Amino acid sequence: MSPFDYTPILTQAVDELSDSLSYQGLFHQYKDGEPLPSGKTLHHIVELARAILFPGYFGNPAINSRTINYHIGVNIEELFGLLTEQIQAGLCFGVENNGLDNNENEPCRESATRLAAQFISRLPSIRHTLATDVEAAYYGDPAATCFGEIICCYPIIRAITNYRIAHELYMLNVPLIPRIITEMAHSETGIDIHPGAQIGHHFTIDHGTGVVIGATCIIGNHVKLYQGVTLGAKSFPLDEQGNPIKGIPRHPILEDEVIVYSNATILGRITIGRGAIIGGNIWVTESVAPGMRIVQRKE
Amino acid sequence: MSPFDYTPILTQAVDELSDSLSYQGLFHQYKDGEPLPSGKTLHHIVELARAILFPGYFGNPAINSRTINYHIGVNIEELFGLLTEQIQAGLCFGVENNGLDNNENEPCRESATRLAAQFISRLPSIRHTLATDVEAAYYGDPAATCFGEIICCYPIIRAITNYRIAHELYMLNVPLIPRIITEMAHSETGIDIHPGAQIGHHFTIDHGTGVVIGATCIIGNHVKLYQGVTLGAKSFPLDEQGNPIKGIPRHPILEDEVIVYSNATILGRITIGRGAIIGGNIWVTESVAPGMRIVQRKE
Amino acid sequence: MSPFDYTPILTQAVDELSDSLSYQGLFHQYKDGEPLPSGKTLHHIVELARAILFPGYFGNPAINSRTINYHIGVNIEELFGLLTEQIQAGLCFGVENNGLDNNENEPCRESATRLAAQFISRLPSIRHTLATDVEAAYYGDPAATCFGEIICCYPIIRAITNYRIAHELYMLNVPLIPRIITEMAHSETGIDIHPGAQIGHHFTIDHGTGVVIGATCIIGNHVKLYQGVTLGAKSFPLDEQGNPIKGIPRHPILEDEVIVYSNATILGRITIGRGAIIGGNIWVTESVAPGMRIVQRKE
Amino acid sequence: MSPFDYTPILTQAVDELSDSLSYQGLFHQYKDGEPLPSGKTLHHIVELARAILFPGYFGNPAINSRTINYHIGVNIEELFGLLTEQIQAGLCFGVENNGLDNNENEPCRESATRLAAQFISRLPSIRHTLATDVEAAYYGDPAATCFGEIICCYPIIRAITNYRIAHELYMLNVPLIPRIITEMAHSETGIDIHPGAQIGHHFTIDHGTGVVIGATCIIGNHVKLYQGVTLGAKSFPLDEQGNPIKGIPRHPILEDEVIVYSNATILGRITIGRGAIIGGNIWVTESVAPGMRIVQRKE
Amino acid sequence: MSPFDYTPILTQAVDELSDSLSYQGLFHQYKDGEPLPSGKTLHHIVELARAILFPGYFGNPAINSRTINYHIGVNIEELFGLLTEQIQAGLCFGVENNGLDNNENEPCRESATRLAAQFISRLPSIRHTLATDVEAAYYGDPAATCFGEIICCYPIIRAITNYRIAHELYMLNVPLIPRIITEMAHSETGIDIHPGAQIGHHFTIDHGTGVVIGATCIIGNHVKLYQGVTLGAKSFPLDEQGNPIKGIPRHPILEDEVIVYSNATILGRITIGRGAIIGGNIWVTESVAPGMRIVQRKE
Amino acid sequence: MSPFDYTPILTQAVDELSDSLSYQGLFHQYKDGEPLPSGKTLHHIVELARAILFPGYFGNPAINSRTINYHIGVNIEELFGLLTEQIQAGLCFGVENNGLDNNENEPCRESATRLAAQFISRLPSIRHTLATDVEAAYYGDPAATCFGEIICCYPIIRAITNYRIAHELYMLNVPLIPRIITEMAHSETGIDIHPGAQIGHHFTIDHGTGVVIGATCIIGNHVKLYQGVTLGAKSFPLDEQGNPIKGIPRHPILEDEVIVYSNATILGRITIGRGAIIGGNIWVTESVAPGMRIVQRKE
Repeated sequence: MSPFDYTPILTQAVDELSDSLSYQGLFHQYKDGEPLPSGKTLHHIVELARAILFPGYFGNPAINSRTINYHIGVNIEELFGLLTEQIQAGLCFGVENNGLDNNENEPCRESATRLAAQFISRLPSIRHTLATDVEAAYYGDPAATCFGEIICCYPIIRAITNYRIAHELYMLNVPLIPRIITEMAHSETGIDIHPGAQIGHHFTIDHGTGVVIGATCIIGNHVKLYQGVTLGAKSFPLDEQGNPIKGIPRHPILEDEVIVYSNATILGRITIGRGAIIGGNIWVTESVAPGMRIVQRKE
Repeated sequence: MSPFDYTPILTQAVDELSDSLSYQGLFHQYKDGEPLPSGKTLHHIVELARAILFPGYFGNPAINSRTINYHIGVNIEELFGLLTEQIQAGLCFGVENNGLDNNENEPCRESATRLAAQFISRLPSIRHTLATDVEAAYYGDPAATCFGEIICCYPIIRAITNYRIAHELYMLNVPLIPRIITEMAHSETGIDIHPGAQIGHHFTIDHGTGVVIGATCIIGNHVKLYQGVTLGAKSFPLDEQGNPIKGIPRHPILEDEVIVYSNATILGRITIGRGAIIGGNIWVTESVAPGMRIVQRKE
Repeated sequence: MSPFDYTPILTQAVDELSDSLSYQGLFHQYKDGEPLPSGKTLHHIVELARAILFPGYFGNPAINSRTINYHIGVNIEELFGLLTEQIQAGLCFGVENNGLDNNENEPCRESATRLAAQFISRLPSIRHTLATDVEAAYYGDPAATCFGEIICCYPIIRAITNYRIAHELYMLNVPLIPRIITEMAHSETGIDIHPGAQIGHHFTIDHGTGVVIGATCIIGNHVKLYQGVTLGAKSFPLDEQGNPIKGIPRHPILEDEVIVYSNATILGRITIGRGAIIGGNIWVTESVAPGMRIVQRKE
Repeated sequence: MSPFDYTPILTQAVDELSDSLSYQGLFHQYKDGEPLPSGKTLHHIVELARAILFPGYFGNPAINSRTINYHIGVNIEELFGLLTEQIQAGLCFGVENNGLDNNENEPCRESATRLAAQFISRLPSIRHTLATDVEAAYYGDPAATCFGEIICCYPIIRAITNYRIAHELYMLNVPLIPRIITEMAHSETGIDIHPGAQIGHHFTIDHGTGVVIGATCIIGNHVKLYQGVTLGAKSFPLDEQGNPIKGIPRHPILEDEVIVYSNATILGRITIGRGAIIGGNIWVTESVAPGMRIVQRKE
Repeated sequence: MSPFDYTPILTQAVDELSDSLSYQGLFHQYKDGEPLPSGKTLHHIVELARAILFPGYFGNPAINSRTINYHIGVNIEELFGLLTEQIQAGLCFGVENNGLDNNENEPCRESATRLAAQFISRLPSIRHTLATDVEAAYYGDPAATCFGEIICCYPIIRAITNYRIAHELYMLNVPLIPRIITEMAHSETGIDIHPGAQIGHHFTIDHGTGVVIGATCIIGNHVKLYQGVTLGAKSFPLDEQGNPIKGIPRHPILEDEVIVYSNATILGRITIGRGAIIGGNIWVTESVAPGMRIVQRKE
Repeated sequence: MSPFDYTPILTQAVDELSDSLSYQGLFHQYKDGEPLPSGKTLHHIVELARAILFPGYFGNPAINSRTINYHIGVNIEELFGLLTEQIQAGLCFGVENNGLDNNENEPCRESATRLAAQFISRLPSIRHTLATDVEAAYYGDPAATCFGEIICCYPIIRAITNYRIAHELYMLNVPLIPRIITEMAHSETGIDIHPGAQIGHHFTIDHGTGVVIGATCIIGNHVKLYQGVTLGAKSFPLDEQGNPIKGIPRHPILEDEVIVYSNATILGRITIGRGAIIGGNIWVTESVAPGMRIVQRKE
């Protein structure tokens, strides 16, 4: 008896949900032959990059100085292939979404190949900077017992690795892909760093959950944040249609050696001067001079 | 020699842990032939729902307007089957845990089938509302480049999708399953929305980590929250045994067009009036009039 | 034509990334024949422990009082084997990273076996304490409908289970492994409890995202925290080289029946006295007497 | 341009292939709520049975005399559950295909449960007989080095195990499932034993590929076959419609201690007497007296 | 100590095996951007085709007459995409191996698309013929209980399905792919049918292991073979270099209603006339007149 | 009600099957800390070896002359590690089964490492010989279109590769493992070559199903077999207990350039002289002079 009941309900739901009016703006129309952005592939790309950057910690652990050359060779090859495909997917995606004419702005495999190779040429420098971030995490935490523990366990390493990878792709104007990569780290660690932010060396975040670093932030060297810190926009000018104007600098600048304690909120294009210390749970919307120390008023 | 050592230890541990006194209240006794709630199946159910709601973005990407009917048909079928099973599992679970007599309140496949069909009949309306949430996220963030980026990357979309699915099941009085679905999104995004909350259209949360929306919240249309916002209970009356009384409205009401900035905490059954703005890092326990703007005292 | 372009770029990247200078401190050198710490195996270890501690809720659901003995027997066996391997991996890792001479401090399978057996002998007591945590979560939340919902869905149960497992391993001086286990829960729940912290029975955290509990915290019985609470260090003394001195008590003590509301920050080796209540969004750096109630100043 | 071409072709193929006339007799109509025969599940069932019958050789290898009880307990439980489901699927399948009225002959879970329990009660006797088959293979092959090698590698063990399992299910009148189980072994080993055949103890086949043993064969104890041997039907009487009449004994009887060499073909309901030896590559259609030796004529 | 020993051995093996002289003729040089033939993908293609041809027996079993249209639609789409890719891979492979100039004979996605669509347009006719093969198997075996058992279990159905798929691709001049598909069935069933053979309707093979049907065989309608039958070439003329000349008809023709019993060998371009019966274990190298019955001489 | 029925049946089956008397000879007792032979690992070992021997055809297809060195390096490393483990497992297995005293004959990791390295040093020579087998298959089959087709599809290549790998391990006196490897190929191809057989270069088998090559066969160069050929033992002397005496040469010697047609059976330690041709379906038990041609008597 029950089949008599639900058949028309299911059939009607299929019909309504297949009606093109109902999926306006929520439907991604596939173009035949184009690669597609894939969260799964991007996840694998990040794992490959980690295996290359921190050999023996991620990827195949049975690696030694005799065989490292083989492993890095194979991983670079695979990374190059997958990244080319995903960059191409990102370029296609960008073209569609900007309503550009496909013929004049063809996002071809050729340029994806070039961008992937450029990205790979920057891996040594990414590793160099990540080494400073590992140091910063180690020397900033009395509970840390060794570099290995930092690399294996600390959420900041996961978040900053994804960010540094994504930032390079962002600088190469690859659409969509960088943001997917930083959001992966956001989901895993609760640390939300926009790929457009600029972050110096020896950067660290303790614990990390709830940190937000906005798209136009500029962060110097040897900066340390704690959990729950927001580096956000205060407000943003609207255009004539009442929509936010894109691309305006609207997030803070943190100079070298700034420390921001947990749950502090720093908003707007202000400057926190070199060596300033921002106390926890406070709300800062005006620039802070170098060396200053701002704390919550005692209750 | 070592086998001589550990054998009695392991054997004793097995015996102690198999002793029925030791697992009182921590043991779920399986009833033969009943389906079981499964996190893995519910995860797949949510993926199917996403594939139906946002075709081409989730699920099989190689979908086009000619074939969308096939794909939605197959996905609805699979969703219907799995959901029927999980709803039945939830009903069984509810019966047991409420100590009801199984014979009088038999949670049969029949009613699970009906509830699953009812849920499916609401999918078009869920999609309709989610479209407004995507719009709200896009127009509320200057860093957003297109709708596709919102749908693919923004944690709010993941959280609000799970919530809107779970809320429908909650309204159908399905036990347990709705909460598992919202907790999945909580784990992935750090956004904790109770399935019992009522949330209007054009809702968005920026960044999102640390947001808590309690079970009896009522949220209007065009409301925007930032990361770390709590819409919680202030305190709750206890019954004669000193246990909290269940089911009392105890969370805030946010009227249309309210904005709440990061890390603000709003507690108790108070009302934040239409268009009010609550500043970051503050603690609100009394109602706020429409159009008011509340901010943290400057340090 | 494109192969002509990218070949030298890839080859050079491989060479630079295989250069031993470039991976100084970021490379984990595998020792032939030693087991390796594996996130995947540790994940499975935690799943086995959950299946043993909460039979029927996790692991094979089709378990009943007749067969529980078989299932716990098989799970204990598998847990014992995998844990021995991972403890050995942790011991090897610890030796290397402390620069100890491998011959004098050989982390042998023998001692890993003993430690794994000791851990297993504590599982009944871990289950006993977890039962009190489930109670605390249930009686502390008006939205909770039954114990089963708490065990299946509530992030605190996931976080406290991993912590209680990791803490036992920490007390057995197993390196690295405990921290990996608590960081798994941190990633899933946003609750960051250091395995070194000491936490009494009937402990709960509501919602949980953003909670940080530092390595030297001491928490009594019947304590309740809300989301975003930090129990952190205020500052830490540096040694002559300017590095933090490890091992000094630097986090708060919370006595029995303390409640800390959302986003409060409690820093330094201070004592929050029995039954004290700390309001939300505040910053506490000095001890609080028993029974006191501290709240944010009204705006 | 290409999308213009293939769309109508695909659409027409879908339409033709969905036309109910076109799948007459090739379509298995699912009945809502009934389990379905699953090759994958049956494969797992056979693996469980092997793990029970040959502990330590198949299934979890890390088993010892202390823990064997746990492992067999868990495996029997799982086997019982899966087998109940698959027997039920087989019963449903049988009902449909015999055009029986579903109401009068309801293949219920009840009887599947009973049949699965009966099967399990025969496992000790199946193991007992398989032990004789292992012996026969070992003593019959000068190349065999130990019992372990026979159990791990010899195709006959795989084939005879599947046959002895399937034969018990066949004797319980379970439809379809027995044949799927023997065909799995046929595919893996090239040995095709019909589940209806009756085979005594100490049975072996050397090499095995190409052996066929028909449904009504009766084989005594201590019989040995070589590769390519056929024990088949000579011809079969037709009914009035010209279709073969089912259920008539039509395959050979081999008495105890018969040996049949490679590629010999023995056809029809004839008897090969005790201790007879049939040479290779010959064709036998008449009974052979006990102790006789039949060989191919020399060229 | 052991690392000192094996390092040079491994290093030398790597060097020798990477030396281009050593892999002459055994190396498949990948061309950047071209798809590659994949056994795994072809396996999935065959599974999709089976799900389309025998709905409910293979693929998703929970299919019914209301939803068959959705499932066939989705499966055809996926089949079309994967087949296009594999046909393209086969075309590329063919070009390389024939030393053709890549520019003049470019195996483009365009023609792969066309061939895949042509293949799909023939699926209804393949299903039609397979229905006759199922009938032939059923009416030819007294042990068969229903069509469902034939479709699920009988090796001939697996073998003939792969052959009929592969033969269509062979007729479209797709290189390599057809042979991989028939060899899959060969491995699973021991039935080796070359994709070039021509086979009429109502074809069946009983048991099947060891059957060989050569590339230029022509087989009529209602033909039945038993296990171990060879339809092979007797000898083949050599060219001036002593290599076999390709493409000459060299395998037998079997007219309608021929039966060939087990292990018979029929060699050369001879004709077995309509209705002839070839006995088991014999060797036939000359044509047989219609209606004749050939048997092995009695011993 | 049904739980009441089956509980005692299952419990009794568990008890009987856990009784040590019942698993006498069928139980493999695990020794703590020893690796275990694993069909899955050996399967992977064979896949790695294939990827090394036929680069680009098996394993990662996206390999080119620039990167082949990386891939072979990584594959050799992995092969070496897994093979060491499996050889050690084989040695342990051999010790146990021969009842040797474990202390005096300890099968240590040390000797497994040495044997694995020796095996790897022979891979270049294995590849060299396999290249001749590919040639033999190509020039022997008019239907073959290119070397690539032979390598990808022809069962002989799969069988001979497994044999040549297994034979090297057999020559190093590794127990058990070689036979498991050849039985894998037997299952996939129906070709059963004992790892102890000696086979020259340019060896091929057409079609292959049903071929058996016994443990003491000696096969020269340029030999070709067809499907169903048996090179077996005629009879074997028994020892005083009536068991076959192991290790006596009992299978045929085939000199160079011998051809054996389908289903021929050659038995005993006889010699088939250089260039002899053995016709199909015949039974040969006496030596054949060089250049002779033996065929079945015409019917």
